[in-house]
Amino acid sequence: MLKGDGTMDLSNYSVRTDLALEAHNLASPSGEVIPGVLTSSENIEGIRISKTDITSQEGSLAIGKLPGHYITIEVPELRKKDSNLQDRVATVFAREFEAFLAKLNISPMGKVLIIGLGNWNVTPDALGPIVVENVMVTRHYFELMPGEVSPGYRPVSAVAPGVLGTTGIETGEIVQGIVEKSKPDLVIAIDALASRSLERVNTTIQIADTGIHPGSGIGNKRKGLTIDTLGVPVIAIGVPTVVYASTIVNNTIDMMRTHFQQQTANTAQILGLLDNMEEQERLELVREVLSPIGHDLLVTPKEIDEFIEDVANIIASGLNAALHEAVDVDNVSAYTH
Amino acid sequence: MLKGDGTMDLSNYSVRTDLALEAHNLASPSGEVIPGVLTSSENIEGIRISKTDITSQEGSLAIGKLPGHYITIEVPELRKKDSNLQDRVATVFAREFEAFLAKLNISPMGKVLIIGLGNWNVTPDALGPIVVENVMVTRHYFELMPGEVSPGYRPVSAVAPGVLGTTGIETGEIVQGIVEKSKPDLVIAIDALASRSLERVNTTIQIADTGIHPGSGIGNKRKGLTIDTLGVPVIAIGVPTVVYASTIVNNTIDMMRTHFQQQTANTAQILGLLDNMEEQERLELVREVLSPIGHDLLVTPKEIDEFIEDVANIIASGLNAALHEAVDVDNVSAYTH
Amino acid sequence: MLKGDGTMDLSNYSVRTDLALEAHNLASPSGEVIPGVLTSSENIEGIRISKTDITSQEGSLAIGKLPGHYITIEVPELRKKDSNLQDRVATVFAREFEAFLAKLNISPMGKVLIIGLGNWNVTPDALGPIVVENVMVTRHYFELMPGEVSPGYRPVSAVAPGVLGTTGIETGEIVQGIVEKSKPDLVIAIDALASRSLERVNTTIQIADTGIHPGSGIGNKRKGLTIDTLGVPVIAIGVPTVVYASTIVNNTIDMMRTHFQQQTANTAQILGLLDNMEEQERLELVREVLSPIGHDLLVTPKEIDEFIEDVANIIASGLNAALHEAVDVDNVSAYTH
Amino acid sequence: MLKGDGTMDLSNYSVRTDLALEAHNLASPSGEVIPGVLTSSENIEGIRISKTDITSQEGSLAIGKLPGHYITIEVPELRKKDSNLQDRVATVFAREFEAFLAKLNISPMGKVLIIGLGNWNVTPDALGPIVVENVMVTRHYFELMPGEVSPGYRPVSAVAPGVLGTTGIETGEIVQGIVEKSKPDLVIAIDALASRSLERVNTTIQIADTGIHPGSGIGNKRKGLTIDTLGVPVIAIGVPTVVYASTIVNNTIDMMRTHFQQQTANTAQILGLLDNMEEQERLELVREVLSPIGHDLLVTPKEIDEFIEDVANIIASGLNAALHEAVDVDNVSAYTH
Repeated sequence: MLKGDGTMDLSNYSVRTDLALEAHNLASPSGEVIPGVLTSSENIEGIRISKTDITSQEGSLAIGKLPGHYITIEVPELRKKDSNLQDRVATVFAREFEAFLAKLNISPMGKVLIIGLGNWNVTPDALGPIVVENVMVTRHYFELMPGEVSPGYRPVSAVAPGVLGTTGIETGEIVQGIVEKSKPDLVIAIDALASRSLERVNTTIQIADTGIHPGSGIGNKRKGLTIDTLGVPVIAIGVPTVVYASTIVNNTIDMMRTHFQQQTANTAQILGLLDNMEEQERLELVREVLSPIGHDLLVTPKEIDEFIEDVANIIASGLNAALHEAVDVDNVSAYTH
Repeated sequence: MLKGDGTMDLSNYSVRTDLALEAHNLASPSGEVIPGVLTSSENIEGIRISKTDITSQEGSLAIGKLPGHYITIEVPELRKKDSNLQDRVATVFAREFEAFLAKLNISPMGKVLIIGLGNWNVTPDALGPIVVENVMVTRHYFELMPGEVSPGYRPVSAVAPGVLGTTGIETGEIVQGIVEKSKPDLVIAIDALASRSLERVNTTIQIADTGIHPGSGIGNKRKGLTIDTLGVPVIAIGVPTVVYASTIVNNTIDMMRTHFQQQTANTAQILGLLDNMEEQERLELVREVLSPIGHDLLVTPKEIDEFIEDVANIIASGLNAALHEAVDVDNVSAYTH
Repeated sequence: MLKGDGTMDLSNYSVRTDLALEAHNLASPSGEVIPGVLTSSENIEGIRISKTDITSQEGSLAIGKLPGHYITIEVPELRKKDSNLQDRVATVFAREFEAFLAKLNISPMGKVLIIGLGNWNVTPDALGPIVVENVMVTRHYFELMPGEVSPGYRPVSAVAPGVLGTTGIETGEIVQGIVEKSKPDLVIAIDALASRSLERVNTTIQIADTGIHPGSGIGNKRKGLTIDTLGVPVIAIGVPTVVYASTIVNNTIDMMRTHFQQQTANTAQILGLLDNMEEQERLELVREVLSPIGHDLLVTPKEIDEFIEDVANIIASGLNAALHEAVDVDNVSAYTH
Repeated sequence: MLKGDGTMDLSNYSVRTDLALEAHNLASPSGEVIPGVLTSSENIEGIRISKTDITSQEGSLAIGKLPGHYITIEVPELRKKDSNLQDRVATVFAREFEAFLAKLNISPMGKVLIIGLGNWNVTPDALGPIVVENVMVTRHYFELMPGEVSPGYRPVSAVAPGVLGTTGIETGEIVQGIVEKSKPDLVIAIDALASRSLERVNTTIQIADTGIHPGSGIGNKRKGLTIDTLGVPVIAIGVPTVVYASTIVNNTIDMMRTHFQQQTANTAQILGLLDNMEEQERLELVREVLSPIGHDLLVTPKEIDEFIEDVANIIASGLNAALHEAVDVDNVSAYTH
């Protein structure tokens, strides 16, 4: 759910990021061990799977993310529209998601409600609604014809509740209402994120069991979607689909620093100046550069539309395979459109 | 919400219709007065406004519609894409809707929740969601900045909850959940209808204060959206966007009857045969003709897409003007896209 | 290209049909051999492939289709959204199309221009433009980087020229202009058709080497796309996406005949009347029944949108595999979106 | 037509711009008169209309734009979705365009071909195709029913030819082919532009009689659409819909310069360094910052989709009124959707 209210929020100028992996890298640039944070990663032919488990309050504070389990799937080549790669990513996603469900002790028949956050009509924010459109929905068969559903399926429902600006109602309130009526055992919330990194846009998928928290993410979600507000576990799936404009400004400042550093000695003074540029000064500079846009989000034109749909398809296929035993993890894309 | 489950329901073969106006015409073909049913109508340059008030149980049984107030706006030329006519229809709609609200004693500050029934992804069923996309939503301003909203506006929220086949949850349950959380004083439900008449498709708008009832309409709404299920009054706005295929079959049979009637005397026997064709026989004939489609709904290709959007725009514009005093009833379309 | 001009053309009331297979069945209801017409067919797990070769003027006159080669792929279950079946149909299409190219002596490096006829904005007429959007286009690589294109590809270009009603220019003229500038060796024209049969809608694909002729099909193509007008061979690919309303009327009349026939003897007279109903009388009846629609085309609502896209995808995948040796005929869908 | 080939072209890093107004401002920052360049401007309630006539080769060289007439309509508030403002802009556009036609001696019955450049499926590049979809097309009435068209209309046709990447054919070639067949007296080409200024995105419309030149604009238009290639005058209508990312980088560098300038004296050295940073150095810096995007175009998320459609609607309405005397310049939007 991308913030669409026109205000400029430069809070992302700070080191905060939605991705646990980035947060860990920022807190541990040289890879030193952080107490209370367990990490591991593997590479499978162009797909990197990283796991970050934050097991203590100490670890949580150290990297600025809530305690919980985080999986990050990075696929740098994902924007190349290679169908085979996409199929492999869906399969990896399904396998990891299935293991995640097992870790959370969600039973194979546990009822699942999928919430597609975001706005249909703003392309980079439409990830959640497109996933909702593409997942297999089965709950009504269990309600209307109990006992007649083939084995290997679980009750799955899916709703795209819209955003505050188009509904006038907090998304959290709408979801609470739906949860109270439909009584799922697990909520899966899919959301578009903003990224500090141009490379991550539409190439990275994060799965986390921490829910969606007030103030986290980039949209207006003050009520949050968490086990506390909804009464059931909430798994959040997020994909960066836009970048912060301030990232470009900050990168420019950093590059200038590096640039002058490579020059001769009498530039010592300029380096001092740049180094001494205070946080507040730097923030002001960023704000000034971006004031004509009025906000801090950017999309790269070639990536909208098609790429969002590709990633949504991967997530929908992966969820179908992970949620229903009858859907084969090795051929997940056949069940989705 | 157009039935999308593939089963063939020929219940419409009977005289039942979603439109009170049609029901009245069927029950009173020559215009005789029906006790408990008050009707009136006026014509304004190509726009016909008919009011049907069913004031007693007797009247209700006589025409097969629930007691309540019905307004029908008929605009035979509406499919001609004449912007001026569209603007005039929006203005008429706004004025009638405003009077309707007054009759129901809805206060100018009463909170309104607009529900767009139907499926985004099936063009003739997308009427409700398109209206929701286009109405002015204001509730969040009242919630987030109480006291700062300009006078002349009321709190309006709007949700397109999806359909059972794509969410897995009864629409009635979702709406109940949202109503409990957002606490509106009035629900307005917009829905696509099926028509027995080819002329009515995308040219007729019905407003009724009876809500949306289980079994009425053509979709699966067993829980209904009524004052009983939701606890607040429900105004239903419906537009026929598809026709029953069985209408064409029935028209053919009737035309054949008329055709032979116009021929000479020795055809008396055939008329007898046609007249004596029993209800069950006739129904069987209809079923046989339509079995290859597997259901009973048809769209005329030129009418989909653009016409649905035009009507949705008229309704959204009309609602904006009727719901907010600050929006001018004579220039309603300026506030909508 | 579906006729969108609002006039009612009941010429389809006659036995004329766009599908050679249907034309042959009408001319040879009991399967007798027609001189100058060779037919064969095979079934592969739910896919029926029929070939009709009209080899003489005599055969052409007998079934009312131009001399040439026709392939019909019928897949009754195609609307069931079974991805595996769709993949198999794409593979069959690719194999048959490849054989068709060989029969026409189109060389593996022959330049191909794909023309997607029809209107983007009218769902059932959007088949051609959607195929164009999904095929692999390679011609520009050959033009801009000759010698650097991997072996196994041929130069393919693709244009959706729009329809007369939205461009103001005959489609044939636009295509002529593009052919003169881009100089292909073969034109492939994809078009939506109207069908006399409800079962065929979105389940049948016809391939023919006769081009698209003035008066054939249902759109306004007075100039045609043929070897005579364009100077290169033209393969037409057609899929019925709408039905004639008159089909339903005619089916009703026929069913009534059958119905009374099954009754006792003294109905002899009615049968006589129905049998003697003259062509002109019957046509008048059809016209009367359909006059409120003002034209003769209908869509079934569940079939629009998604089904059109599925068939378009099958054709695009099949063309990619058939046109480029480097694209594997057994895994065609991987190259398409 | 936005460049979509993934290569990074930083040529815009130089002072080049598609807008004559910006080019003039860059060449004459303090407003000094440039020989061979005539400028004038007026303001009408939030709409600024500027005219730049380049009358000599000297003037052309001075500001880097071809000799010709340029009109720029700037509406800073255009993104505020105010329907009344949009209607006023359409009226201003129509009036200015009409005057432009008169200046070019295009007769009221001169045949016009409107070309919508760009890609349907990439939102910020869809401006041209959306305009084509919305303009009134009349040429076919003149061809099919000469003598029966009401007075006050001229023959107008409209085509969206697609882009090289999706057709495989140079857009210039396709347009040449269509011009040769349909023989218009004037071509109007509508195109999305990239801007150096964040404020201009979707708020500025430029009209120019110079056609579309190879290398100008941001797409791949090596053949150009000019009187030389097409044989008839070409009016180009352009709207900036994306910004250069490099603009943000450059703005950052400039802001840093200003920032340090405001500091005390001993920063003289840093200013020297920044001032002396050579063009090549600066370009390298920009390239480094942007390398992760791989290209130089950005969209602001709130502005895509809806804003593009609003501007397209204004242009379509304005063209309808300007091209047909029978369409009223004061109520242009009534004729468009």
